[in-house]
Amino acid sequence: MKRTAFFISDGTGITAETLGQSLLAQFETIDFTKLTRPYIDSVEKARAMVQQINSAAEKDGSRPIIFDTIVNQDIRDILAESEGFMIDIFASFLAPLEQELTSHSSYSVGKSHSIGHNSNYMERIEAVNFALDNDDGARTHYYDKADLILVGVSRCGKTPTCLYMAMQYGIRAANYPLTEDDMESLQLPAVLKKHKDKLFGLTIDPDRLTAIRHERKPNSRYASFAQCEFEVREVENLFRRENINFINSTYFSVEEISAKILVEKGVERRLK
Amino acid sequence: MKRTAFFISDGTGITAETLGQSLLAQFETIDFTKLTRPYIDSVEKARAMVQQINSAAEKDGSRPIIFDTIVNQDIRDILAESEGFMIDIFASFLAPLEQELTSHSSYSVGKSHSIGHNSNYMERIEAVNFALDNDDGARTHYYDKADLILVGVSRCGKTPTCLYMAMQYGIRAANYPLTEDDMESLQLPAVLKKHKDKLFGLTIDPDRLTAIRHERKPNSRYASFAQCEFEVREVENLFRRENINFINSTYFSVEEISAKILVEKGVERRLK
Repeated sequence: MKRTAFFISDGTGITAETLGQSLLAQFETIDFTKLTRPYIDSVEKARAMVQQINSAAEKDGSRPIIFDTIVNQDIRDILAESEGFMIDIFASFLAPLEQELTSHSSYSVGKSHSIGHNSNYMERIEAVNFALDNDDGARTHYYDKADLILVGVSRCGKTPTCLYMAMQYGIRAANYPLTEDDMESLQLPAVLKKHKDKLFGLTIDPDRLTAIRHERKPNSRYASFAQCEFEVREVENLFRRENINFINSTYFSVEEISAKILVEKGVERRLK
Repeated sequence: MKRTAFFISDGTGITAETLGQSLLAQFETIDFTKLTRPYIDSVEKARAMVQQINSAAEKDGSRPIIFDTIVNQDIRDILAESEGFMIDIFASFLAPLEQELTSHSSYSVGKSHSIGHNSNYMERIEAVNFALDNDDGARTHYYDKADLILVGVSRCGKTPTCLYMAMQYGIRAANYPLTEDDMESLQLPAVLKKHKDKLFGLTIDPDRLTAIRHERKPNSRYASFAQCEFEVREVENLFRRENINFINSTYFSVEEISAKILVEKGVERRLK
């Protein structure tokens, strides 16, 4: 069965998209075409949107599902005339919240919900810069400022995880690659020992690591299965010996790895 | 007025957090303490959660607001016994969706909703690597593989925007800094001319740029207001002359900038 889903917003569309994706993921047997349509903030854009919705309806032979977070009533009225099945996110929850909080929301007074440019902006940019500046062991003398230091073999997923934690939570995460040299000596580098409470380990299945390294350096010793297996085994042994908690990036998304690390290390988000 | 809000999930908590943040942002007069609690996936963790909720209720003198996306009914029953005011995200929307789709959701059969490790994972990692490898004009010979190329003065926000687009959408975005040399000659570098359809401009207020550069290189000519003002003016003139659409990063969040760019360039997300 084929269905089109639209995530429609007068802002970025991230709320409609995140909730919509989660809800649709519960229907595994249905093949959804998902379209995000941000900044539908005028009557003209709403009318063009209705045409898109209706042509998807005709093409699929079934009503598209609409997840929307639009504030303006005129725009909502136009979308409501489309062939779509509307899941009205704000309307569903704001009325009970208004009652509980005995307060009117900006929504009910027709104000937009821009994320705006607040203190979070600089906090987040600084976290991203921290991740980039302290990536791959490039710089170690700012580890006292780090919330976390990820350790693991080269190409096990440390950098994307650090960047995600910076973007999503404003967490300052450094990362340090455990290279062959560290493995021979079978101990933590001195620079990491000093910050042992901040360490978290990432590991990866040797098969997957071989494939990833092969993309970067085809047919190298670095990318060989034997080398990957050796490094992974030695590093996992090191984690166990040093009591460093670790997670296998082969089986989890970047979101899942990040959330698990924050729970395990008891680190709270910095973004408000 | 003070209130505590909990974003509770048996998974990453990102859906509960994103929707909860959006809804609470509509109540500007209330001071919320926001706590994300992912991986509440056992009866024991749920009981500990209830204690946290109840002590927040006692401390605040008002019911905490609970946004939850928990699937397991036993865990939900325990949370429902807390002092919190529950906003039950999945329950509200899945019943109407099941009816519309004439299909049972995993939720109603008690299955978890892991993001899992799908084709999105590699797509996203590759997009992040693309942004890193093609950051700051470091490499230009892969621009034919880019979905977008952001251009602008040094430190106007190009790198975080490229990384966000990679993480959130799987978009391959390169970025190229317009430096003083390019400004003197008052034209686009040849390497950018070839890919003019992929260009998008970022600009920034000179005040903000001065502050940001000052953090990196205090008291340098690079960070002086005169230099920042000159560069911004010249680059904005170049954008206008060359008909390159641009956006001012001073007034928008990274999410907003990214969503606006995708709309203007007509680029669709790569992540499913």
